[in-house]
Amino acid sequence: MKKITVSLIAEKAQVSPATVSRVLNHRELVKEPTIRKVEEVMRSLGCQMENTVTVSKETQPLIVLNIPGIENVFYQEIIRGARVSAKAHGCHLLIHESHLNKGNMLDFCNLLRRVDAAGVILLNRISEEALNQIRMIVPLVQCCEYNEHADYPYVSIDDTRAAELATEYLLANGGSKIALINGPGNFKYAKRRQEGFMNALQKAEVMIPKQWIVQLPEVSYEMAYAAVCRLLNSDSRPNAFFTISDVFAAAVIRAAKRFHFHVPKDILVVGFDNIELSSMTTPSITTVNQPKFQMGYTACEMLLELMEDPHGEMKSLLLDTELVIREST
Amino acid sequence: MKKITVSLIAEKAQVSPATVSRVLNHRELVKEPTIRKVEEVMRSLGCQMENTVTVSKETQPLIVLNIPGIENVFYQEIIRGARVSAKAHGCHLLIHESHLNKGNMLDFCNLLRRVDAAGVILLNRISEEALNQIRMIVPLVQCCEYNEHADYPYVSIDDTRAAELATEYLLANGGSKIALINGPGNFKYAKRRQEGFMNALQKAEVMIPKQWIVQLPEVSYEMAYAAVCRLLNSDSRPNAFFTISDVFAAAVIRAAKRFHFHVPKDILVVGFDNIELSSMTTPSITTVNQPKFQMGYTACEMLLELMEDPHGEMKSLLLDTELVIREST
Repeated sequence: MKKITVSLIAEKAQVSPATVSRVLNHRELVKEPTIRKVEEVMRSLGCQMENTVTVSKETQPLIVLNIPGIENVFYQEIIRGARVSAKAHGCHLLIHESHLNKGNMLDFCNLLRRVDAAGVILLNRISEEALNQIRMIVPLVQCCEYNEHADYPYVSIDDTRAAELATEYLLANGGSKIALINGPGNFKYAKRRQEGFMNALQKAEVMIPKQWIVQLPEVSYEMAYAAVCRLLNSDSRPNAFFTISDVFAAAVIRAAKRFHFHVPKDILVVGFDNIELSSMTTPSITTVNQPKFQMGYTACEMLLELMEDPHGEMKSLLLDTELVIREST
Repeated sequence: MKKITVSLIAEKAQVSPATVSRVLNHRELVKEPTIRKVEEVMRSLGCQMENTVTVSKETQPLIVLNIPGIENVFYQEIIRGARVSAKAHGCHLLIHESHLNKGNMLDFCNLLRRVDAAGVILLNRISEEALNQIRMIVPLVQCCEYNEHADYPYVSIDDTRAAELATEYLLANGGSKIALINGPGNFKYAKRRQEGFMNALQKAEVMIPKQWIVQLPEVSYEMAYAAVCRLLNSDSRPNAFFTISDVFAAAVIRAAKRFHFHVPKDILVVGFDNIELSSMTTPSITTVNQPKFQMGYTACEMLLELMEDPHGEMKSLLLDTELVIREST
């Protein structure tokens, strides 16, 4: 980012700093000759006109991070990572919570304009059309969830591969009758993890009844508990669970106790995310660690680059996961 | 809120709506005669000039909610409550995370101006001076934590009384040797809950060793686990724990298992907050339920009233808590 201040431009253009600021942000309020004069000075100083961010304004840039739901603790570390990066670059970070969809996209775009946002980090998978709409206002980076059909940068993990490895680990440790407790199907991660789960079963030539693939509409402990109780109360019960969230894994452990099954002796459990909860339960939960902090941090770093150079090339990135073995397997 | 729109004022003053908007928000950009003309029309329509909020703007007002740390899941329900209220009134809600202090107060005030915030909900206890600074910019309401010496409205709970009742319950159920696992001392809740704990002991004429009052610098599961392990590993060990967070209670349960003590047979545990975790552990945690959603909702409703009438009277409010009895006692 070039260290050209509004004051410097104002001085050289012989106008007030407020006028320069208006040229940058409220061009409609400034007369044409003044705009031309200010723009000339900025060009002579080497600022690109289409990119007002190259001028370091007196105000700190603002980054908006959108999360689908505050109740999912998975997002905490991602937010922390983004905050560390934003702070290091002197940017404000504000968090907006919304399941972005057609119904509220206009609201969100209005908000971005209203607060004069400099960039957006999106943790929702949204349509290409909506991404285009947002990109008209500010640079954006997708984090965790992303639209693979749209040409916008993202940082995420290889969900399919991670789920496949976790399932293979269960199969190798005696979990021959595996159930999948999955989350809302409109999320990329739910689809991919189910794919990975099925891949591993297919390779091992293991068949499971259809009802052992449970799709829950929310990452809700209560719902998972009820669903797992039903599975454990049936005549043909699973002896292993792969769950796409540690919250679900905690529900499996609780449900197993309710039916006097021992974890891991009778039932193996593998979760996903490695949130703090996974080491709080007894037994503690074997889980797939996601690099949450790094994803948030990297997403913000990528965004900052785009804010500096909106037309620069930006490669997307898949970060590594790892299986953390604890007491539940 | 009077239903007088910018368009109506513009029509009557024979200026563009953009000019009216500028008079309201960027007075410095408008010529004096135009300001006078617009203000005259507004007065004739019954708008108070010192309070631009009485004019319903085309843009949605923005409320900023500050939390000290995103990692404390206790805030989730508070945010949800505030969001429901804000949404119902057509306001945007953005979350800002910061331990507000002298060092970053200027940053925060700049942010509020930068995004043209209409009001603030504060979950930090901050100095009267800082509250005054913020109030110069926007109306504010304190939630959970508050400065009792400053004359600003708050919604919270009676921490002292809640802690006293919880401790009395432990004493009545055989917990004669009670330890307190407390949080960071700069929080009002930590001071008050310790007060309540001591009150109950005093009334029952129970004495405890000094080292059974543990003050941790963070609401951290890891730290609590280590501290409780030390207590349980000593010759004179407590047979009951009152913890000011369910996260600490979960750590007590885990530490008790580590030393082969049975909860609740050998050790009683009462937590605080009633976060989801308290029903996820085995045994589940007896805890003081805080009306988290209601606090967030009420704080936002109070703020909306202040945004409409910044000089109106506003009473503070303490909401009720209740003891939720589960398996850990």
